[in-house]
Amino acid sequence: MREKENTLIPNATAKRLALYYRYLRTLHSQGVLRINSRELSEALQVDSATIRRDFSYFGELGKRGYGYDVENLMNFFAKTLNDDQLTKVALIGVGNLGNALLNFKFYQNNNLRIAAAFDVNPNVIGKEVSGLIVHDMKNMKSVLDKEEINVVILTVPGKFAQDVANQLVDIGVKGILNFTPHSVLTPDDVVVQSVDLTNELQTLIYFMKRQEN
Amino acid sequence: MREKENTLIPNATAKRLALYYRYLRTLHSQGVLRINSRELSEALQVDSATIRRDFSYFGELGKRGYGYDVENLMNFFAKTLNDDQLTKVALIGVGNLGNALLNFKFYQNNNLRIAAAFDVNPNVIGKEVSGLIVHDMKNMKSVLDKEEINVVILTVPGKFAQDVANQLVDIGVKGILNFTPHSVLTPDDVVVQSVDLTNELQTLIYFMKRQEN
Repeated sequence: MREKENTLIPNATAKRLALYYRYLRTLHSQGVLRINSRELSEALQVDSATIRRDFSYFGELGKRGYGYDVENLMNFFAKTLNDDQLTKVALIGVGNLGNALLNFKFYQNNNLRIAAAFDVNPNVIGKEVSGLIVHDMKNMKSVLDKEEINVVILTVPGKFAQDVANQLVDIGVKGILNFTPHSVLTPDDVVVQSVDLTNELQTLIYFMKRQEN
Repeated sequence: MREKENTLIPNATAKRLALYYRYLRTLHSQGVLRINSRELSEALQVDSATIRRDFSYFGELGKRGYGYDVENLMNFFAKTLNDDQLTKVALIGVGNLGNALLNFKFYQNNNLRIAAAFDVNPNVIGKEVSGLIVHDMKNMKSVLDKEEINVVILTVPGKFAQDVANQLVDIGVKGILNFTPHSVLTPDDVVVQSVDLTNELQTLIYFMKRQEN
């Protein structure tokens, strides 16, 4: 069970992998041994044809009439998502949102860990937040090099987003989870995933409106 | 320019509408009069064929050889996304993340406004956060009715997510933006949009890994 062709996997599929993975881990922790696409569909509220098509990009993950072996599938997605090894992440910008993310146990049971935090505010630098001492942003390169971190969560004020992203690119960061309301442009080899809260709300409202019709 | 058939629009397209809208507003504020799909593609890092297909679901939005009229298209998306009228939203759970979202000016320049906040903690109830007095969750129904709110942002601890969602459904809420790490099940007429921070990070890391290959 390995990926057939990484580059052929549609983005929409790629974005559902973490969802599948999380649910498989829940099932596994409950001692569930196997599951079929219909059951997955009901639990995840994703169309079962979509699930089968998503899985088909990775080759034969299940058996007709048997469904999917929960543990095998979980391990497969763990490997696909790099969750079989620890990924350390840095957080840039310890304001309200940065504080919330540092305190949020989103890496609970996952191999993700925020291992460094940075700010420019002298009142924040040196403080301990959720077990981490906030570093001066001036020292990003040395800290990220030392900690071997190449992925960051960006929670600086929107107007600084591009400037900070440029600095991050310069020091070799390869992935940015952008929580600012601004778009961030990077070279092709640096991946940006944006979490735009306004977008999320507008999309929800659009789906609600569509539901009413 | 109106939607041809709401229900035929794929979810992936629906999820890009807010992105298009935001960028069109930026262009409009800069005095840009028209744009073509190639320029949109470069700015938004979405394939231009995808953009043209997305737009095609809404009928003839542009003219061949001319491109798109920025103001018309912006107004069209404003209407589609209900941003031509004020939508009031409530926030449930004023912990770290709730506080951050209340202080986050994500509705800046949009017709979205967090108009009520709720918690169960006596130390938080009655406090003012970002201009709002935090209400007791006991009073959700009366406050939401009075404010005519039927969409909420859910930032309670994950273990309470489903319980609170059940209460929200009972009092007539029709849309939930779920920021907890737990899935939330609701009847078909209540839309849930989940922002899962672990998912977002894992997806970013997956895209980074794919980039390396």
